[in-house]
Amino acid sequence: MTRRLMGVGRRFLELKVFGRWGSRSQRSVHHCSALVYREHTHNISNVRMEQLPLPVLRDNGVRVKMLAAPVNPADINMIQGTYAILCALPAVGGNEGVGEVLEVGDGVETVRPGDWVVPVDAGFGTWRTEAVCEEDDLITVPKDISLLGAATIAVNPCTAYRMLQDFHTLTPGSTVIQNGANSAVGQSVIQIARAMGIRTINIIRDRPNCGELVKELRDLGADYVITEDEVMSSGLQSIFQEVPKPKLGLNCVGGVSGGLLLSNLDYGGTLVTYGGMAKKPLQIPAKSLIFRNVSLRGFWMTQWKRDHRRDKAALRSMLDSLCDLVRSGRLSPPNCLQTPFPQYTLALEAAPQPHQRKHVLVM
Amino acid sequence: MTRRLMGVGRRFLELKVFGRWGSRSQRSVHHCSALVYREHTHNISNVRMEQLPLPVLRDNGVRVKMLAAPVNPADINMIQGTYAILCALPAVGGNEGVGEVLEVGDGVETVRPGDWVVPVDAGFGTWRTEAVCEEDDLITVPKDISLLGAATIAVNPCTAYRMLQDFHTLTPGSTVIQNGANSAVGQSVIQIARAMGIRTINIIRDRPNCGELVKELRDLGADYVITEDEVMSSGLQSIFQEVPKPKLGLNCVGGVSGGLLLSNLDYGGTLVTYGGMAKKPLQIPAKSLIFRNVSLRGFWMTQWKRDHRRDKAALRSMLDSLCDLVRSGRLSPPNCLQTPFPQYTLALEAAPQPHQRKHVLVM
Repeated sequence: MTRRLMGVGRRFLELKVFGRWGSRSQRSVHHCSALVYREHTHNISNVRMEQLPLPVLRDNGVRVKMLAAPVNPADINMIQGTYAILCALPAVGGNEGVGEVLEVGDGVETVRPGDWVVPVDAGFGTWRTEAVCEEDDLITVPKDISLLGAATIAVNPCTAYRMLQDFHTLTPGSTVIQNGANSAVGQSVIQIARAMGIRTINIIRDRPNCGELVKELRDLGADYVITEDEVMSSGLQSIFQEVPKPKLGLNCVGGVSGGLLLSNLDYGGTLVTYGGMAKKPLQIPAKSLIFRNVSLRGFWMTQWKRDHRRDKAALRSMLDSLCDLVRSGRLSPPNCLQTPFPQYTLALEAAPQPHQRKHVLVM
Repeated sequence: MTRRLMGVGRRFLELKVFGRWGSRSQRSVHHCSALVYREHTHNISNVRMEQLPLPVLRDNGVRVKMLAAPVNPADINMIQGTYAILCALPAVGGNEGVGEVLEVGDGVETVRPGDWVVPVDAGFGTWRTEAVCEEDDLITVPKDISLLGAATIAVNPCTAYRMLQDFHTLTPGSTVIQNGANSAVGQSVIQIARAMGIRTINIIRDRPNCGELVKELRDLGADYVITEDEVMSSGLQSIFQEVPKPKLGLNCVGGVSGGLLLSNLDYGGTLVTYGGMAKKPLQIPAKSLIFRNVSLRGFWMTQWKRDHRRDKAALRSMLDSLCDLVRSGRLSPPNCLQTPFPQYTLALEAAPQPHQRKHVLVM
């Protein structure tokens, strides 16, 4: 179930890491520090900071100083070799982040020195101080949002945005139900839905500090926050006296929790799965599909970006909308820890642990 | 999960059974024999033949002599009270069948005496010698196909046809995979797909007379017939060296068998569920939805007919296509037993038993 990064992604990594872009006889004039893994491993200490030469800048090339890059679960899975796409080895870790353009080739038109940019595809290798890549591999983001906001805009908020846009025509007053509501995507869903006038029913797992979490999510704009146990014991009928049943369910857990979404969807609703944290399959009774006309779909941001690689307008429009929300304070980055790049070990070790705050490496 | 028949269906049944159409003071001039159930029951002997008065014919009315009507599993489930829609009680059983128009009201335009007609919706109560209904409740079928073909065209072949038309754009050379391939729908899928130039991979449960069944299905046009056990032990890789992986899977079993369809679908494929014979839920791993972009949908012919009630052109076009196939010998009715109407007990008692041939009541 894993695929090697192909096309641009793969070539691109090799080029950046090993400076093979252009003739081998050309000497690199720049170097960078990068977090490199040379084999797939569950031992995170095998990811080491290395000095890498950067390829020389060509006509369509861009040299970027990375500013900040988060450590996301998928980054760790790629290092472990367990993700659905893998980079050619050796590779630089990190798929998301924001950089500032330092220098561009003569043929470059869409970015200029000083611009903030984010990668348009997975596999960039964002855990590095500098990178040289092609113009098409980057897209600008505005500089008047926070560094953390820019560094974390391109995966989780985009996932939330697309799922709210692409599966049902939601209008103000519509309802969406989700589990894993305190995940990074879940928090984005709450905030983007709120800005769209859409009500959210948010299911969380029972936990000791449940009251705190409920308050946090309600402060973000969650209309209803309810634990799995409460849904199982009392159902959602009291909520459905106040708001319509949801046409859209967003599932990042699976198992029983996914079933709770499914059984509370409206007739003709869609359950979109974008994660499987419980590592248990969804159980789908035939009657839900046949008589309640419920559909099950999946969503993967990486695939969306690849499908829209030649249609940057769609990505542009999404990023503009999301950055507007960030600028106006309606979409906050997740509650991150900013970790200086040299202390990367701390960030990588924390990432696979449950209930840890997300680390953002600051270069 | 059950709903009462509403709107036309409900009123219609009451009218036909108890002659309440028109003024109560008007005396009915015709009667019929009908198989009536007065409560929901698993005891099929509670379904009894009764003499019912027919309502008088009004301007938009049609009087029909029923010719033949099958006993389908859903008919039994409706009597038991376990189906997703139920008729108001007391009710006449049977949802499918063909009749000949005897008489029409002055305002009727689309059917004429002598025409063969089938009901456009579930809940007609086809187990009867005569019925009076509205013009809109019927649609004509050609008289140059067999009585059995006409009596069984409107549910199973229509289900197969729609599933092959509505979920993926299939072109000659495409592949479809299905389980329950020897069901009435499954046999229609094989034949309609064959006529469309589409290859079918047909999964059946292992059984003593497996070789016979394989031959029967291959004679119908099945490209591949394989047991669940064979799929689990050897996979379908040898088949996928000859034909492309299927974009469409048709599931009427669920449980493990549904999983075999899912795991053999192509990237971006759709699994359509129209039955749940195993009475076990589908188990759907998150990665199938996320990384293989597989979708799950449901199909219910009754709902399709209701959704298209005001668009008879779609139903007309489908029936014409199917009747063309029947006429040219490319679509055979299932291997039915023709049972004289007075011997209905035989047919009703056989229907819930496994591995029984379908009975068609001949009036």
